[in-house]
Amino acid sequence: MSTMTGRLYGVGTGPGDPELLTLKAVRAIGEADVLAYFAKAGRSGNGRAIVEGLLKPGMTELPLYYPVTTEIDKEHDDYKGQITGFYDASADAVAAHLAAGRTVAILSEGDPMFYGSYMHLHVRLAHRFPTEVIPGITAMSGCWSLSGLPIVQGDDVLSVLPGTMAEGELERRLGDTQAAVIMKVGRNLPKIRRALASAGRLGEAVYVERGTTPSSMSIRLSEKLDDTAPYFSLVLVPGWGGRA
Amino acid sequence: MSTMTGRLYGVGTGPGDPELLTLKAVRAIGEADVLAYFAKAGRSGNGRAIVEGLLKPGMTELPLYYPVTTEIDKEHDDYKGQITGFYDASADAVAAHLAAGRTVAILSEGDPMFYGSYMHLHVRLAHRFPTEVIPGITAMSGCWSLSGLPIVQGDDVLSVLPGTMAEGELERRLGDTQAAVIMKVGRNLPKIRRALASAGRLGEAVYVERGTTPSSMSIRLSEKLDDTAPYFSLVLVPGWGGRA
Ligand SMILES: C[S@@+](CC[C@H](N)C(=O)[O-])C[C@H]1O[C@@H](n2cnc3c(N)ncnc32)[C@H](O)[C@@H]1O
Ligand SMILES: C[S@@+](CC[C@H](N)C(=O)[O-])C[C@H]1O[C@@H](n2cnc3c(N)ncnc32)[C@H](O)[C@@H]1O
Repeated sequence: MSTMTGRLYGVGTGPGDPELLTLKAVRAIGEADVLAYFAKAGRSGNGRAIVEGLLKPGMTELPLYYPVTTEIDKEHDDYKGQITGFYDASADAVAAHLAAGRTVAILSEGDPMFYGSYMHLHVRLAHRFPTEVIPGITAMSGCWSLSGLPIVQGDDVLSVLPGTMAEGELERRLGDTQAAVIMKVGRNLPKIRRALASAGRLGEAVYVERGTTPSSMSIRLSEKLDDTAPYFSLVLVPGWGGRA
Repeated sequence: MSTMTGRLYGVGTGPGDPELLTLKAVRAIGEADVLAYFAKAGRSGNGRAIVEGLLKPGMTELPLYYPVTTEIDKEHDDYKGQITGFYDASADAVAAHLAAGRTVAILSEGDPMFYGSYMHLHVRLAHRFPTEVIPGITAMSGCWSLSGLPIVQGDDVLSVLPGTMAEGELERRLGDTQAAVIMKVGRNLPKIRRALASAGRLGEAVYVERGTTPSSMSIRLSEKLDDTAPYFSLVLVPGWGGRA
């Protein structure tokens, strides 16, 4: 019986295009005995879809299904208790594999440490098992690259703002930065549009949905006529307009 | 005689570790007839060092040497004129290859559109030639991953701040954000330290130099006793301290 524990990899999968995986991510997935990933109940998860082509026959999969919920109750204590319990149980499931000597790769869309669920497992496991975090291409890098949009140069400040913020706060911050990225757009789009307009930045804003995937779409926000946006969308406000 | 022009790739090389190249970057370099990169006179350039292992025999190299300068005169009109002329001449050199039907990969450390020199060529060439920007792992992603530092979660704001900013402005912004990344540390370290201290964030700050390279080093800034820092260093202030 070996006393060696397995190795934990937190693997960034990038924003969608499987070619945006790093060589290191490909190697880690190749080494892993167990592939873990977060997913909504009944779905197979976006991270898993990105690495589909790399799955080995016989690889153990460990889908971690979020508790069923609506966005509305995310601030309630009930939800918070449920989600904490979910992360605890997920960490236990991963830990059992690691303790048995199996190497586990936990997938994370984009970059694991950048608004990723992976970090909830990282803080529960990294002090107990040999752990390596493999950075990924962030959604924002994928989106500004495909839009051909230089985002920051020289002394520009970049503010990354969650679209979940209060409108006044969003407006204030948009008025106090050279460049901005607004994440988590979805149902927040009407609010984001108003905040951009009040801050005088609507004209520069570019909307990108499902960036780097086959159904990706990039358009000036002022030219987008409806206010529907999927979860996988963001808004870019470039700081550097191509000054030579 | 073919009338087809070559293809331009802006290739992000990631922060240093060659394994952090994406599959797409590797493919683009493999397709390229000409490898272009910025470098200081007499050096071979950091981007080129990262892709060294991928160079094909007979590949044409086009090093683009920055005009010799010191940091001090960067705001002077003389320098600005010189650097604009340099970018114009560099774009012309790349355009000549593209016009002759050769595919050119321009390397950019980290991500090309994120404080990268590549964008000066992009704005001069992308409207004239078929162009694709291949995003790269940013230095900040590489650094927070190797430090195992969850940087932002939930509603956290991330501010990316150039260390070249005025001290008061740096202090103000550090006091008005959950998470921060301070780029371009180098000789700005004493100022950055003071701004962090005044904003009450010094205790959380982590300093990383040459992240993901063999000589990489990561330490709490409060434990770093000297004030010397290379150009390739940054400071991370995590917003999410591991709240479950
Ligand atoms: C929980 S955050 C995860 C961010 C991810 N870890 C990263 O590194 O970019 C989810 C948000 O990322 C953005 N996002 C992720 N993938 C995207 C894509 N392919 N296109 C546009 N936005 C995307 C959306 O704003 C979405 O609401
Ligand atoms: C001109 S900016 C280029 C940024 C790059 N395009 C990116 O995507 O991160 C140069 C600054 O990036 C940071 N940097 C680049 N590589 C780094 C590394 N390996 N470790 C730490 N900081 C790095 C330093 O702050 C440096 O002053």
